[in-house]
Amino acid sequence: MAKVTLLINCKDKSGIIATVTNFFHERNGNIVYIDQYVDTENGIFFMRLENEFSLEFDIVKVRADFEKEIAKTYNMNWKLFAEERVLKMAIFVSKYDHCLYDILGRYKAGELGVEIPFILSNHKDLEPIAKAFGIPFYHVPVTKDTKVEAEAKQLELLQEFEVDFIVLARYMQIISDKMISEYPNNIINIHHSFLPAFAGAKPYHSAYKRGVKIIGATCHYVTAELDAGPIIEQDITRISHSHSIKDLILKGRDLEKIVFSRGIKLHIQRKTMVFNNKTIIFT
Amino acid sequence: MAKVTLLINCKDKSGIIATVTNFFHERNGNIVYIDQYVDTENGIFFMRLENEFSLEFDIVKVRADFEKEIAKTYNMNWKLFAEERVLKMAIFVSKYDHCLYDILGRYKAGELGVEIPFILSNHKDLEPIAKAFGIPFYHVPVTKDTKVEAEAKQLELLQEFEVDFIVLARYMQIISDKMISEYPNNIINIHHSFLPAFAGAKPYHSAYKRGVKIIGATCHYVTAELDAGPIIEQDITRISHSHSIKDLILKGRDLEKIVFSRGIKLHIQRKTMVFNNKTIIFT
Amino acid sequence: MAKVTLLINCKDKSGIIATVTNFFHERNGNIVYIDQYVDTENGIFFMRLENEFSLEFDIVKVRADFEKEIAKTYNMNWKLFAEERVLKMAIFVSKYDHCLYDILGRYKAGELGVEIPFILSNHKDLEPIAKAFGIPFYHVPVTKDTKVEAEAKQLELLQEFEVDFIVLARYMQIISDKMISEYPNNIINIHHSFLPAFAGAKPYHSAYKRGVKIIGATCHYVTAELDAGPIIEQDITRISHSHSIKDLILKGRDLEKIVFSRGIKLHIQRKTMVFNNKTIIFT
Amino acid sequence: MAKVTLLINCKDKSGIIATVTNFFHERNGNIVYIDQYVDTENGIFFMRLENEFSLEFDIVKVRADFEKEIAKTYNMNWKLFAEERVLKMAIFVSKYDHCLYDILGRYKAGELGVEIPFILSNHKDLEPIAKAFGIPFYHVPVTKDTKVEAEAKQLELLQEFEVDFIVLARYMQIISDKMISEYPNNIINIHHSFLPAFAGAKPYHSAYKRGVKIIGATCHYVTAELDAGPIIEQDITRISHSHSIKDLILKGRDLEKIVFSRGIKLHIQRKTMVFNNKTIIFT
Repeated sequence: MAKVTLLINCKDKSGIIATVTNFFHERNGNIVYIDQYVDTENGIFFMRLENEFSLEFDIVKVRADFEKEIAKTYNMNWKLFAEERVLKMAIFVSKYDHCLYDILGRYKAGELGVEIPFILSNHKDLEPIAKAFGIPFYHVPVTKDTKVEAEAKQLELLQEFEVDFIVLARYMQIISDKMISEYPNNIINIHHSFLPAFAGAKPYHSAYKRGVKIIGATCHYVTAELDAGPIIEQDITRISHSHSIKDLILKGRDLEKIVFSRGIKLHIQRKTMVFNNKTIIFT
Repeated sequence: MAKVTLLINCKDKSGIIATVTNFFHERNGNIVYIDQYVDTENGIFFMRLENEFSLEFDIVKVRADFEKEIAKTYNMNWKLFAEERVLKMAIFVSKYDHCLYDILGRYKAGELGVEIPFILSNHKDLEPIAKAFGIPFYHVPVTKDTKVEAEAKQLELLQEFEVDFIVLARYMQIISDKMISEYPNNIINIHHSFLPAFAGAKPYHSAYKRGVKIIGATCHYVTAELDAGPIIEQDITRISHSHSIKDLILKGRDLEKIVFSRGIKLHIQRKTMVFNNKTIIFT
Repeated sequence: MAKVTLLINCKDKSGIIATVTNFFHERNGNIVYIDQYVDTENGIFFMRLENEFSLEFDIVKVRADFEKEIAKTYNMNWKLFAEERVLKMAIFVSKYDHCLYDILGRYKAGELGVEIPFILSNHKDLEPIAKAFGIPFYHVPVTKDTKVEAEAKQLELLQEFEVDFIVLARYMQIISDKMISEYPNNIINIHHSFLPAFAGAKPYHSAYKRGVKIIGATCHYVTAELDAGPIIEQDITRISHSHSIKDLILKGRDLEKIVFSRGIKLHIQRKTMVFNNKTIIFT
Repeated sequence: MAKVTLLINCKDKSGIIATVTNFFHERNGNIVYIDQYVDTENGIFFMRLENEFSLEFDIVKVRADFEKEIAKTYNMNWKLFAEERVLKMAIFVSKYDHCLYDILGRYKAGELGVEIPFILSNHKDLEPIAKAFGIPFYHVPVTKDTKVEAEAKQLELLQEFEVDFIVLARYMQIISDKMISEYPNNIINIHHSFLPAFAGAKPYHSAYKRGVKIIGATCHYVTAELDAGPIIEQDITRISHSHSIKDLILKGRDLEKIVFSRGIKLHIQRKTMVFNNKTIIFT
């Protein structure tokens, strides 16, 4: 049995759902998931479809047919994924280890369904963790003067290992526009505040200073503007006046881990689409 | 512009989605909501569809066509609702007023989109509230000896006012099997615990005794077995050892109100289906 | 049996707790609540104490003794409240009714333990609600030209009715510095976002635009700077891409009501202290 | 600077707080945390106190003084802990690895402040994880016939390594009454439901069957009666009709991890007391 996932967006028109569902029905597909959303403000239609095929299934031909018979007509942006294809996820870290431990624990427990070709860091501190989990570790230091070479080295590694997407597990360096344009909507960051509050550095310090009663974490795609990319997932936890900044950092760790992993999983399962700097999340 | 909502369940078969979406597409309907669910264990297919029609739209004819062309073939249970039809909701209460105040506040704020033909109670205590909100109030006392007449009186009122569904806003009497069979999946109760924990009387007392750290509330359809009907909505709030039973009751009020109103709204918007004593909630 | 509540703040020193608890023990008080907090950054000590007295209890004498024996020595800010004194709470509204309905429902249900001498509005829309609940209503329109008189009228009413504190139940006018200085930390506002995100007007519109996955509400004391006063309580609810601005407004209502009422209750129960534009909340 | 934590419970009497705070004040202690609770139903007083001492501090003498001067008079159950003493925590596991990974990640990140002398399992599956984290692993198989020897072996290891408390990270064997009586309120279990709902085996299956809209996890002390011990911490997550049992198991993992780790930390920080099969949690 083969399973494929279709993601579509295009100008909204009547009849798209009927047309698309017919297309797969005619090919003996069984729809096991359908959801759609219309951005009425901009007149854009979005759809996610999962189809199961019990017979032999030629994805190359289906893609060609779909392009010819449907996508062209509606001028669609679309992707058809085969489930068997396992994504390759690179992890970038600096010195904080909690998100790394969490991802690797989930990875080993079989929760993610990805390959992790390597862990990359601008510091050597977390190399032993990579080793304990049996994953290649690359130390690519970044200084003011070596920024360009460092990035070149990073891109070289990403290409060599055919990485599909990158997760920044508290990686404390700015990602360059070049890298972002090479991996559009494929670099996932965890920010330790409920954005747009407390963007930028030291959000726990700012939260403490403002006296908020909840702190948050935000998982988002990286764009050129810092902490302003499309939000994939957010969550919060309650705090009180009695919590010090150190307490916030500690409490925040659990939030960061859980929000980050939820965001990563949504991406892996191709449940996210991006439009106008916002995400559509098909759950 | 007319808007209709379709609810379907039937034995799962390939092609239902394509067939149904085509049906509406051919009639110039524009699908603005589609969601489906397959209970794989029992092989049952569920779907909810919202269609907008910009042209004249003959719901009687569409219903007849749908029955003939589709529903018969697939042996469907189905309903097609026109949005204009405003539901009539009766409220049953006893002495607690918090859920009543909450519902009436929402009603007056235009949040519910129903008519409330009357409030019925086995006590007179809450009559002034009904009066303040300008809603007819019926006092139907229930004692051991008058149970049968009381119920007859209730059914009479329900029929007279053509009530569609009943909400039990902390109504402290058992609903008879007869009443339940007259309003299947149309009597909505709020129970003050996270069912199945603490079913029956005095759940806050039991929660206190067990030393739980969360209390809950459950909104469910009433069935013959007490507190065992299909769950529509649940939520919880945190408590601690320092909360007395009185505190739990007070904290629980807010939970009851919010969970009850969410459940009622899901019902009004026809987002609920019931199968095998469980709900499918299309959100 | 008399019950008194003590609130203290002063420069942190060793021995305060022992000294204060002794003071009440010597007068046959029974401590039923004690909590303290030290702002280590600024070296400030905060304490809340509830004492029960089974014998006759002369609060005037106790206050004098406390000032002489303890407060002077430690240079304390302090207040000793007798529980019997019922606070007077004025409600300011404009056109939105959901928070008003919620407060009045709680008030009638005996949940708040305050008097409500009047409801004041710059519009006439909500007068019928005041009437239905039997509470005096004052219409004080505010225009550019009548601002000064309007405020004078407001202050006159507040003084005439000996109002202790004011709650702004979605009151859509700026509160003047004069009013704020007359009621320091006694004007409570509900803002419909998780501050500091989306301060100012139309937070739901901004939340929609940014594509956040959670929306919030914040209950805070009003200070001269808009939406920047000490936060008493916050909470959030999850949203998705599929929610329109109208949906956010509707979902936000429930948040506003619950967060507002929690903040108001903390204030009424004298569980809040303010320092450095932050609250200490003794729960 | 030395820091000590005092836990007390005794029959409630007036003056205990003043007496105890004086005791530490006279010895130049600075109270940095005080909280108390009175179980009014049973007339029992509970207190937790943290004291900092800047001078030399003789804990042995203070303990003797406290017993003589205070504890005897009030017939107290009490413990005075020195902060420097690091607790020894044994981990029991079976085949599920998610809780183990989570604990070990936190341990390595310095979050727990305990020693882990060993991991013990009735299966060999998780030995590689113990090895990767550099922690001794003991395989003690348990079968019907070897139950008694297995337990003897377990107790021998616990004594040899001077273990303070045991955490059952999804350990799938019943703990014997003997073991429980050797470690009263020192064996911590994670149960994958919001107890008292779905006690016993397969709670996710039961939750699925009942159609609940929230699932939970409960961290509790182990007592002779299965899943009925004092609850330390609980939390929940929302589910829908569309989640299969497998989904519940996966979603539940995150809940189990977070609830378990919170419960363990409360225990390590001596913030828990047990009375009448309920916990008092000093936060």
